Amino acid sequence: MGALHAGHISLIHAARRRNAFTIVSIYVNPTQFGPNEDLAAYPRTFETDRAACRDAGVELIFAPSDPVMYPPGDQTRVSAGPLADTMCGRHRPGHFDGVCTIVAKLFGVVQPDFAVFGQKDAQQALIIRRMTRDLFLPIEIDVQPIVREPDGLALSSRNAYLSPVERRQALCLSRALHAGRVSLLDGAPRDTIVAKMREVVAAELGENMVDEAIDYLVAVDADSLEPMTDTTNQLLLAGAVRIGRTRLIDNLLVDRTADGR
Amino acid sequence: MGALHAGHISLIHAARRRNAFTIVSIYVNPTQFGPNEDLAAYPRTFETDRAACRDAGVELIFAPSDPVMYPPGDQTRVSAGPLADTMCGRHRPGHFDGVCTIVAKLFGVVQPDFAVFGQKDAQQALIIRRMTRDLFLPIEIDVQPIVREPDGLALSSRNAYLSPVERRQALCLSRALHAGRVSLLDGAPRDTIVAKMREVVAAELGENMVDEAIDYLVAVDADSLEPMTDTTNQLLLAGAVRIGRTRLIDNLLVDRTADGR
Repeated sequence: MGALHAGHISLIHAARRRNAFTIVSIYVNPTQFGPNEDLAAYPRTFETDRAACRDAGVELIFAPSDPVMYPPGDQTRVSAGPLADTMCGRHRPGHFDGVCTIVAKLFGVVQPDFAVFGQKDAQQALIIRRMTRDLFLPIEIDVQPIVREPDGLALSSRNAYLSPVERRQALCLSRALHAGRVSLLDGAPRDTIVAKMREVVAAELGENMVDEAIDYLVAVDADSLEPMTDTTNQLLLAGAVRIGRTRLIDNLLVDRTADGR
Repeated sequence: MGALHAGHISLIHAARRRNAFTIVSIYVNPTQFGPNEDLAAYPRTFETDRAACRDAGVELIFAPSDPVMYPPGDQTRVSAGPLADTMCGRHRPGHFDGVCTIVAKLFGVVQPDFAVFGQKDAQQALIIRRMTRDLFLPIEIDVQPIVREPDGLALSSRNAYLSPVERRQALCLSRALHAGRVSLLDGAPRDTIVAKMREVVAAELGENMVDEAIDYLVAVDADSLEPMTDTTNQLLLAGAVRIGRTRLIDNLLVDRTADGR
């Protein structure tokens, strides 16, 4: 969706490392925004994005207008299944149907051999992987790790919305995930892990604000997004928290068989 | 969906005429049947179908099992838009979403240069053309004319359900469409055309049965499926009628600028 930051550039580098003819799509897709979301306000910085793509060795930018992607008469929609019923999907109804639809369209236009997505949008990456498999698309989905600021904040185009005070507060999300990881590797059950994460956010935002601020904080199976059990080995700790009027997401993958045990 | 008849074979010939490596999919797709429809009873004649494909010069038959097309975890769905809200879609809720989903999957598996469909399923052909365009699939949709018995009955795998008496009654559908065409070319307005078509069906099935038997009889714009107006030039006369327990469909394309005027 443009407003490129170092996280996006790392996706470009991942494609360039494979000597691919690298195409970047820049398109703020209206169908993945809800009626009360930030479609109009979403940062659009095309000239800067273009320069960043050129510097990163991108061969082609595909930056269509709305009538190209959704021309008159357009009506086909691709919908995600149960993977979209939890986490961000629960708080953004229709969001992942919009994502599936636009990604299917972009795949149709570009016909890529592989497509690079960021682990920052963990649920999106899983749903797109699922869609690609379900529709037998001959496209490899390559998911690249989250890029963070030195203090741990996950890079996001929406970080541009944060005031200096909010920028400091926003750190509570990545800190919460790290506290959850410690708790998880200590062998704590799910409720304890989630309580631990909530505690860190509450310490930053205040006990009276915390439940309003947290969209979700979860410890789930990294493939199915089902709640973790005692036998889940590949875990995803994930959260969405509102800092002021900005909704931020972050996550950590934890391999219980390898990490710290 | 197999149970191949001369209508299907004409689609194969259309592909063979283009010197294509010709792949036939034979798959009775469960997601396009409603809970009270004929999924279990649908005719399955694979050995005969295979011989017919071989005779017609087909290079490959793709006849997957359900767990191949809908494996555990499968959940992505493709949905048709307003084009599915009328005609067959109105009487078979979810039918065209099932059609779009399986056709998108088959397109993914086969990656065809072009795909041949029958005009017999006029609404399906329009919806698949729309889907292909909306998802920017690099696939040409080739729609071939209806093949009919000498007496005018459109070929259909479901004709196998008809008793000898029903087989004679079934003719009323194609006769109704022809009567509608005459009325249309006479310059009659939509209501008169539809009444004319209904009259032919009523004459065959009886005035007390006719409204129960007719799912729809319409005169619509051949591209949008919107009701025809005085200025519609490309028209589709289409109907679905229940003969006994068998639902039959048929249609006629009429070009008002060229036909009979």
